[in-house]
Amino acid sequence: MTSSAVTLIQSRDNALVKDLRRLAQDTTAYRKQGRVWLEGDHLCRAALERSVRPAMAVFSESHWPQWQHEKALAAIKIIVMPDALFKDISGLESPAGMGFLWDLPAAQPLDAMAATVVLDRVQDAGNVGSILRSASAFGFRQVLAVKGSAALWSPKVLRAGMGAHFALNLVEGVDEDDLAALQVPLVVTSSHGGSYLHQADLPWPCAWVMGHEGQGVAPSLEARSSLRIRIAQPGGEESLNVAAAAAICLHASGAAR
Amino acid sequence: MTSSAVTLIQSRDNALVKDLRRLAQDTTAYRKQGRVWLEGDHLCRAALERSVRPAMAVFSESHWPQWQHEKALAAIKIIVMPDALFKDISGLESPAGMGFLWDLPAAQPLDAMAATVVLDRVQDAGNVGSILRSASAFGFRQVLAVKGSAALWSPKVLRAGMGAHFALNLVEGVDEDDLAALQVPLVVTSSHGGSYLHQADLPWPCAWVMGHEGQGVAPSLEARSSLRIRIAQPGGEESLNVAAAAAICLHASGAAR
Repeated sequence: MTSSAVTLIQSRDNALVKDLRRLAQDTTAYRKQGRVWLEGDHLCRAALERSVRPAMAVFSESHWPQWQHEKALAAIKIIVMPDALFKDISGLESPAGMGFLWDLPAAQPLDAMAATVVLDRVQDAGNVGSILRSASAFGFRQVLAVKGSAALWSPKVLRAGMGAHFALNLVEGVDEDDLAALQVPLVVTSSHGGSYLHQADLPWPCAWVMGHEGQGVAPSLEARSSLRIRIAQPGGEESLNVAAAAAICLHASGAAR
Repeated sequence: MTSSAVTLIQSRDNALVKDLRRLAQDTTAYRKQGRVWLEGDHLCRAALERSVRPAMAVFSESHWPQWQHEKALAAIKIIVMPDALFKDISGLESPAGMGFLWDLPAAQPLDAMAATVVLDRVQDAGNVGSILRSASAFGFRQVLAVKGSAALWSPKVLRAGMGAHFALNLVEGVDEDDLAALQVPLVVTSSHGGSYLHQADLPWPCAWVMGHEGQGVAPSLEARSSLRIRIAQPGGEESLNVAAAAAICLHASGAAR
């Protein structure tokens, strides 16, 4: 790579720096800008492995040497900046020192036949990222986020997703009526009723519904389901973390068949 | 309850306020003070249900009316303070408005026969809290934290644990040699070898080892194990979130027998 491909940015007031700061620190700025900020070696390498082609790669001066001979960066615009400026953009306590800017592809329509996970207003970014990882690991192809769920492409969800985003058809802003288009059976998790998971005959493919951390799955959505499933809890706790419950259900359904 | 049991604190410089601020905002201050800060209605009610008897209950002025007729508070010292002071102690973006101060009981020794989860340097507070919830839900009785794991009684782990702390024998600062005292078989999770979970014959009781988010279980600990288990991932992701993997394993072992 020739050094001519590298642009040095020094100023906090640079327009690109301002845009990056918003993308890195505002959970829904990606919707306005139509692009996402992927921060950190692990996430960026996972993106490259899934054939994501970033519009731009941004490095702190001290991190740049680790990447400068990377072939995947050929013909991608490279920005290098002082470490302090990168930290200012990142907003993380321990900034990763590098990141990609990626233009989000046009939203895909819902796939009616895909093995699916539905997020019914799941709030916590860490939970959503963990559920995306589990969905991808266990052979699900699509995640639908009902209005009121955490923003799927926010920096926190991206970090917790560890690259799972790039393996899934992600649809946001879904409402309950949209789910009527699904031709796979809707399976809801419940803390108080339905068949025990380890005894149930699970359909495949299907659409698993994971509910709000406090309220669970909305009754109106539960009413649309083909099957209600609960997880036996011999220890008697009132409920599991939603990402833990999702992992158990998606594994039983997708991997342990 | 008579109003004489209530003390009003107004000053940021009050010694108790300073102690509470440290407990609420410093992950290991509980070790020095020998007591923990339990913040929020849900966590405090879970503690009361498990017969935890706080040394003190602290309320913001606007939250106090919700609790003032609560019988469980009889004979407990009550502190009420302005909302702004409570917020200053809490450090949370959305302070819960109430909390308990609880003297930690003396550390219990390791129980050699108990169904156990071993945390091998698990770093993230949310992951640790979620694993404690799963352990409690699936009938495990003990969690051992190897040196280098997140502090079990930190405010973040307490919040994520949602009361599971009070149902478990928790031992911190364990080293690998201490684990030799366990008389139940050691089962390690692995991302690259061993038997598939859904085909394995799992022992009960046992001690499941969950490893560091990046590095997994230490090879020296794996060498001490009776059984290595991996989770089938037909979608081909490199690994699951550790709390997701723990949920799947603990469910298969403790609940789905």
